[in-house]
Amino acid sequence: MLNVGIIGYGYWGPNIVRNLSSIDGVKVVAICDRRQESLGRAGKAYPHARITADHRDITAAGDIDAVAIITPVSTHFKLAKDALSNGKHVFVEKPFTANTRDAERLIELADRKGLKIAVDHTFLFTGAVKKIKEMVDSRKLGGLYYYDSTRVNLGLFQHDVNVIWDLAPHDLSVMDYVIKEKPVAITATGIDHFGRNLANIAYITVYFKSNLIAHFNLNWMSPVKVRMTLIGGEKKMLVWNDMATDEKIKVYDKGVTVKSAESVYNLLVEYRSGDMWAPRVDHAEALKLELEYFVDCIKRDKEPINDGNAGLRIVRMLEASDSSLKAKGKLIKI
Amino acid sequence: MLNVGIIGYGYWGPNIVRNLSSIDGVKVVAICDRRQESLGRAGKAYPHARITADHRDITAAGDIDAVAIITPVSTHFKLAKDALSNGKHVFVEKPFTANTRDAERLIELADRKGLKIAVDHTFLFTGAVKKIKEMVDSRKLGGLYYYDSTRVNLGLFQHDVNVIWDLAPHDLSVMDYVIKEKPVAITATGIDHFGRNLANIAYITVYFKSNLIAHFNLNWMSPVKVRMTLIGGEKKMLVWNDMATDEKIKVYDKGVTVKSAESVYNLLVEYRSGDMWAPRVDHAEALKLELEYFVDCIKRDKEPINDGNAGLRIVRMLEASDSSLKAKGKLIKI
Amino acid sequence: MLNVGIIGYGYWGPNIVRNLSSIDGVKVVAICDRRQESLGRAGKAYPHARITADHRDITAAGDIDAVAIITPVSTHFKLAKDALSNGKHVFVEKPFTANTRDAERLIELADRKGLKIAVDHTFLFTGAVKKIKEMVDSRKLGGLYYYDSTRVNLGLFQHDVNVIWDLAPHDLSVMDYVIKEKPVAITATGIDHFGRNLANIAYITVYFKSNLIAHFNLNWMSPVKVRMTLIGGEKKMLVWNDMATDEKIKVYDKGVTVKSAESVYNLLVEYRSGDMWAPRVDHAEALKLELEYFVDCIKRDKEPINDGNAGLRIVRMLEASDSSLKAKGKLIKI
Amino acid sequence: MLNVGIIGYGYWGPNIVRNLSSIDGVKVVAICDRRQESLGRAGKAYPHARITADHRDITAAGDIDAVAIITPVSTHFKLAKDALSNGKHVFVEKPFTANTRDAERLIELADRKGLKIAVDHTFLFTGAVKKIKEMVDSRKLGGLYYYDSTRVNLGLFQHDVNVIWDLAPHDLSVMDYVIKEKPVAITATGIDHFGRNLANIAYITVYFKSNLIAHFNLNWMSPVKVRMTLIGGEKKMLVWNDMATDEKIKVYDKGVTVKSAESVYNLLVEYRSGDMWAPRVDHAEALKLELEYFVDCIKRDKEPINDGNAGLRIVRMLEASDSSLKAKGKLIKI
Repeated sequence: MLNVGIIGYGYWGPNIVRNLSSIDGVKVVAICDRRQESLGRAGKAYPHARITADHRDITAAGDIDAVAIITPVSTHFKLAKDALSNGKHVFVEKPFTANTRDAERLIELADRKGLKIAVDHTFLFTGAVKKIKEMVDSRKLGGLYYYDSTRVNLGLFQHDVNVIWDLAPHDLSVMDYVIKEKPVAITATGIDHFGRNLANIAYITVYFKSNLIAHFNLNWMSPVKVRMTLIGGEKKMLVWNDMATDEKIKVYDKGVTVKSAESVYNLLVEYRSGDMWAPRVDHAEALKLELEYFVDCIKRDKEPINDGNAGLRIVRMLEASDSSLKAKGKLIKI
Repeated sequence: MLNVGIIGYGYWGPNIVRNLSSIDGVKVVAICDRRQESLGRAGKAYPHARITADHRDITAAGDIDAVAIITPVSTHFKLAKDALSNGKHVFVEKPFTANTRDAERLIELADRKGLKIAVDHTFLFTGAVKKIKEMVDSRKLGGLYYYDSTRVNLGLFQHDVNVIWDLAPHDLSVMDYVIKEKPVAITATGIDHFGRNLANIAYITVYFKSNLIAHFNLNWMSPVKVRMTLIGGEKKMLVWNDMATDEKIKVYDKGVTVKSAESVYNLLVEYRSGDMWAPRVDHAEALKLELEYFVDCIKRDKEPINDGNAGLRIVRMLEASDSSLKAKGKLIKI
Repeated sequence: MLNVGIIGYGYWGPNIVRNLSSIDGVKVVAICDRRQESLGRAGKAYPHARITADHRDITAAGDIDAVAIITPVSTHFKLAKDALSNGKHVFVEKPFTANTRDAERLIELADRKGLKIAVDHTFLFTGAVKKIKEMVDSRKLGGLYYYDSTRVNLGLFQHDVNVIWDLAPHDLSVMDYVIKEKPVAITATGIDHFGRNLANIAYITVYFKSNLIAHFNLNWMSPVKVRMTLIGGEKKMLVWNDMATDEKIKVYDKGVTVKSAESVYNLLVEYRSGDMWAPRVDHAEALKLELEYFVDCIKRDKEPINDGNAGLRIVRMLEASDSSLKAKGKLIKI
Repeated sequence: MLNVGIIGYGYWGPNIVRNLSSIDGVKVVAICDRRQESLGRAGKAYPHARITADHRDITAAGDIDAVAIITPVSTHFKLAKDALSNGKHVFVEKPFTANTRDAERLIELADRKGLKIAVDHTFLFTGAVKKIKEMVDSRKLGGLYYYDSTRVNLGLFQHDVNVIWDLAPHDLSVMDYVIKEKPVAITATGIDHFGRNLANIAYITVYFKSNLIAHFNLNWMSPVKVRMTLIGGEKKMLVWNDMATDEKIKVYDKGVTVKSAESVYNLLVEYRSGDMWAPRVDHAEALKLELEYFVDCIKRDKEPINDGNAGLRIVRMLEASDSSLKAKGKLIKI
């Protein structure tokens, strides 16, 4: 039996608890939140769990093996450090930490203690992303040209982070998972419309050493909800429309071959336009799969794909994006 | 009767000729192209027009009042200069010129000669853009927050210009028309996948003095054709989907009001989500309306909305985008 | 406090229990199902409720005020009769009964006993249908020309009823609610592909005395899920796409006016094509609203809009459809 | 050289002339229309063609080999008879004739004279229908369960025929081409809203001897344009959305297998839900291909797939539909 304690029972926390509770061999023994209202809800839904407003009742508890931290990012470092210091595995909401230095210190601490860190990069456990990963790994798309993501909708404005830290972790974690090559530089542009010094619209370009570019369109003020990623490869091109109920992934047998010639007027461009194919995508709840996987990684002592290092790589991109944003799009090496 | 000569009878030229020919009081008297094959097509379709491979037969002809120049951008300056010098009005394919200096010289020349320049910013004459202009001008959207445009599809790779000069003039001319405020700075990122030194994917961010930002996603390598513009205003938000056969324009009664408070945790954000409304949009052929308008501007001595200055403003943004692109996203003031 | 007993804890039952449990002043005191597995699930989820395999523990219980019957249609009559006979209000899954005679007997019994019957016509409580009702009642659409509904998808094949009894109650109950005029005749065509004597595809046409026609396309074997209703009025036309996440209702300012003239060649037809408008639609859970309404009808002694008579009208149409289907589309008066 | 004469230069006629004129070895020598305005347009567009208001100048002309008849259906028989009697091949607009008897007489006449009849079933020459035909013939869909077509939009109200004769020929000719088995009975329901005795909404069900059913939803009063056909097979299911610009054909690897068992509660239904596949579809203009094919059939003395018998089969279904419609859905054997 793996005993788990939860810190943070706001919007997302209940989903974590519900899914953890449904896993055989896992017991949610304690739930912590600062807000009385949240504790009330937790107590009603999980009468057998200990309820507390003091996180030390979780991080220092003798009967707890792992801690799930679902709190604002600014608190992740301290809470995770306390949990790890007390010998507990941690599952941390994304983004992992508020800066790379904190992420590195947590990774170092977990390593030293022989504990697991998993960051809640939920999308990695969706059928759609697994299918994309499979197609990229099997070289069905060929070498990659670009990764172009749009994630826009109306709200919710976050109180403590800008639109980059709120929305980009989803897409950056998918890109980080799907594409082996790591970025070398980032630029970001954007705007804060409300004088909060927190951009509510942002555009990120990510450069790689190779012939690959990535771009992210992030917007809290769009009247329509768009969650679309285009991945262009030498052999095939893929569109992931996460708003579609069916056919989330479409693979296009389309391509361009440019044969450079002596003069531009002799340039030979060949276009290929063939069938489209929408592979069946697994619909199982990603969060449940992710939590089962976390438990399994603890039991079998496996390093999670969404480990601290994955979390760190995302934070590094977020940090660089912020730096570039402040400098009006200056190129930031990473 | 207005006698018109045409230079350039490739892909777009025939549409210009067909529409000019259908206007009462206009006569296409001569057509020029360097390619024998194009001249053959022109001669068959317009047996009464003079056919020539030498553009001077048009620019210097005694019986021609106006010249339409539908050739690669690198030739626009010389051809337009010759036509204007010989006292002819000019209709020039977009982008107006290959650089701002050429544009300024043509504007100066036309001014001096009392002649009209119109740049083929066709979209300004579509029902959709006229409706957008009307909504912005009447303040139905309120103050503008952002203008976010995506124009991506597969091909056609241009031989002589990059994706910015090929696709962005459409969207920049619409933005320039719809938004009175003029940009102050630009950044652009992108990539050339084929070693031609001509980017085939590019992202442009345009800054204004006010609380407004614009962004353009341009891509010749997308498996799907997307032509979508989001315009966010204080009161309403608008989506222009130019691929839709019906309901090209959707206006959303949605909005965000952020009331800053002492602490971020007390921040008050109000979201409004009401009806959507798709105004009927005129379907008349934009090119025909544009050419009738050009003829009318000559006859009534009116300055066209798509005059040389409009052309220049677009070229200035294209030039700045190129500079930024070369400098990996460096901010370029304009 | 209103004490409720539940009979039937299969697929839909748990939703009924969950929503009833969340209503203030309502207590689910007992749950009945014949299947041991269902009782196990019920017991785990609602440890304070009595669990029983014998429906008489519900229908004859001294502490139960109302019974919700969520069982196969063939059992509705007997269970509802027992409950009503014992002085309990009933909430019955749709379709109300297996035939009109049973429905009439239950209505008569409830009347005599002064008890409420509500049939689970859930769609009546959706924001979309409430909006449609509002538009029809306020004469915004003008006089109605047609009601055309398509409800097709893959599965689930029902064991005991054909596709008409499975899918049509949804649409017939909406039509019955929205349109005051009642049908006078019905024809139905269809096919059973699997030798079960239960059609899996069916098409129903409903005639009215007035200038109105209704049609229903029902199919368990469609690769795509379509839930679309078109309502054509003299003044406006409405499309209800229940699969859309946003803009479920679109109202088109389109119309046809035919002015008969002496000869058909002089016929004057005027087409009107104006704006489209998508009113905001309430997203509250319909089932919850329906159950709160049921409770409220009991408390205030109001006749529900989805009462036994509404249930009877639907069953009458289903019965007529079956008769027509057997007779290869023969017109059945109702 | 094949000399062709045209009778009827209204809405569709110009398309026929334009395409015929573009075929090598074909010459449009004469165009006939009763309306002066049409003749004016024809004369301007085709200055070398003879223009006449008297159809006998076409049907009896010594220099004409084939006649294209693009007039109202009520005139087809007389015009085609005259043309065939004078030894001319005929291309006749759909529907072929106003009744089956006329169709049979024309077929008999053409046979006797050794002449070709082609009916303008344009859809048979689209890339989409060719792809469907290919998939059905190659048994990729398996045995067919159903063919379900919707063709609805706003207008145009025809003066001389009801919605069935106007819209159904498109779909019936596709069904007739794609499905080898021929119908045995038809029912139709519908309504005339304007007292013209011409239904403007109609629903047709077509029965076959086998386990197959077809249905057609036809409506001149829909606010949205829908042109969608579902074809359900044992192995795969196909959706043809003719309004889609891309992906007109989608093939779903979905299916249902019902294994009857002793009792309905033991019924075993297996659902299969796999990938979707959108084969590339040829975009060449169907009318051009059809006319080239007509010319080729004449030259090589081949029987067209859209010959008089195909035309007759469609007219037979239209006639039966009318009979059923008048009798409120009575089953009409064919």
